Amino acid sequence: MSLRRSRDITSLVGAAREGDPRAVARLVTLVEDGDPLLREISAALAPYAVRAQVIGLTGSPGVGKSTTTNELVRAYRSAGLRVGVLAVDPSSPFTGGAILGDRVRMQDHATDPGVYIRSMANRGALGGLSEAALQAALLMDASGRDIVLLETVGVGQAEVEVASLADTTVVMLAPGMGDAIQAVKAGILEVADVFVVNKADRDGADATYHDIQGMIGLGEREAGQWRPPVVKAVAARGEGIDGIIGAIAKHRAWLDEHGELQRRRERRAAAEIEGIALGVLRARIGTLRHDEALPTLAAEVAAGELDPFAAADRLLSGLDHASDRDG
Amino acid sequence: MSLRRSRDITSLVGAAREGDPRAVARLVTLVEDGDPLLREISAALAPYAVRAQVIGLTGSPGVGKSTTTNELVRAYRSAGLRVGVLAVDPSSPFTGGAILGDRVRMQDHATDPGVYIRSMANRGALGGLSEAALQAALLMDASGRDIVLLETVGVGQAEVEVASLADTTVVMLAPGMGDAIQAVKAGILEVADVFVVNKADRDGADATYHDIQGMIGLGEREAGQWRPPVVKAVAARGEGIDGIIGAIAKHRAWLDEHGELQRRRERRAAAEIEGIALGVLRARIGTLRHDEALPTLAAEVAAGELDPFAAADRLLSGLDHASDRDG
Repeated sequence: MSLRRSRDITSLVGAAREGDPRAVARLVTLVEDGDPLLREISAALAPYAVRAQVIGLTGSPGVGKSTTTNELVRAYRSAGLRVGVLAVDPSSPFTGGAILGDRVRMQDHATDPGVYIRSMANRGALGGLSEAALQAALLMDASGRDIVLLETVGVGQAEVEVASLADTTVVMLAPGMGDAIQAVKAGILEVADVFVVNKADRDGADATYHDIQGMIGLGEREAGQWRPPVVKAVAARGEGIDGIIGAIAKHRAWLDEHGELQRRRERRAAAEIEGIALGVLRARIGTLRHDEALPTLAAEVAAGELDPFAAADRLLSGLDHASDRDG
Repeated sequence: MSLRRSRDITSLVGAAREGDPRAVARLVTLVEDGDPLLREISAALAPYAVRAQVIGLTGSPGVGKSTTTNELVRAYRSAGLRVGVLAVDPSSPFTGGAILGDRVRMQDHATDPGVYIRSMANRGALGGLSEAALQAALLMDASGRDIVLLETVGVGQAEVEVASLADTTVVMLAPGMGDAIQAVKAGILEVADVFVVNKADRDGADATYHDIQGMIGLGEREAGQWRPPVVKAVAARGEGIDGIIGAIAKHRAWLDEHGELQRRRERRAAAEIEGIALGVLRARIGTLRHDEALPTLAAEVAAGELDPFAAADRLLSGLDHASDRDG
């Protein structure tokens, strides 16, 4: 089925809003493909967004993120909430479904229509992966999820960027991985709202716990600022999940009380707008060299009839108008 | 002196056109600084450009480019031609006058007002070094030089890019430097119009000569296409310089006969326009994040009142108009 008419978009958006998982899947694919219709879809969905609680979850590979996500989904489902999971892997060279292998454990929820799970390794056509992930999160939000879990692999800059755009950012550590130091280097200390020391039954868990507590203590914090709690867990045995959920809820309440939720959502919206605008500019750069006006302008400049700055202005003005029309 | 008024520009451009070396120097510095007045200057100079013969000279460090340039300048001066030399070093970490050490030998011409010599390692504010070099070459052209020698260090992509925008591109090799292979890798075979095997009195010169002849022979060439001659030289003793000048003149005549000169100059103009336009787009990307409209747009998106694509359109439209005004 090709989506050519506004009627199709209206019915697709309607189905997604009612929670039809195939419709949501379709929309996320359109994001990954950077489909031009995204613009119309985004406009149709905007009024229904900004309802879900977006929870970011990040940490090095092997720290137990999938297991923890799985358990969090189980807990939120027990509370009757509809959940969307977006697993993002910025470093993956694969396109689409890159970390689906990891998702096998998530099959616990495969037949539950209240859970929508999606892996994402593609960057959208118009920008980076973080922009595409944001857009996909927006779609999940608008499709009636109460909770959107945004899980990223690794603790690099891109991962931190994605995770930091959540309402609440959970950073996971495990003993013996030197994670505390690595997390500080990646600037994670600044964006973490909740720390989880997973595999807390292993040797070195206490050391990791105290390391991270120490680092949190070292950070300067103004009065009234949020101090990230550190929660111990053994996600593989379901232990400590309540503690994580409790810490997230506490942070959410703090966000509400301090007017921070609004501020974070505006920051997220700003990042999204910026991402789309950057994508448009990048696309313009890409088309510059092949612009059909260039040879004519070049001939005028070579003949001394036009100066190169004026020619560049004309070239850009053509591009700007073209993107007004087509974009 | 700060250049604030159009009157200053008019007198500076006038002085440069009469060949005043300080005026030309001033203009090239404005290019390196990406001065906003460049736009006006470029417009004032455009009608006087496209007269000089632009000769590109490239090759690995140590191959004898400065010595050869020095000898070429001497020869062209003997013929009564006014010469500009632009020595470009894309890999230099220094800003301005980076390879002036190398220029010491050029002091032969230091007191000759018919020769203007300039080193360039800065990238212009609006783009890459190759764009800045192109603009500086245009300024030299418009300032009444008959010959502009565009010398680049090394055989990397950036060097090839700069050199290939000349009317005639001279590629220098020396024995025992593995240059022939390296040149092929860098794509130099495609852009070279004249090859010079310098230090032809050294061991291995014949091998280098035959290597490069062999490679030229391997390249596919349509009927009527230019076949790059290979000239032997010992520039340090002034030997072979006539051969190089002859090969350049022959190529120039071929360009004229085949309508190629016009095509090359249009290609150069296209590269220049493209460079300026790219610079403007890059500058817009840089200002995007700090645009004062962004927080308001973000608040509207976060409130579900506006969709992010429409917000991005408004942001970009503001930028486009700002650059129409200020650019």
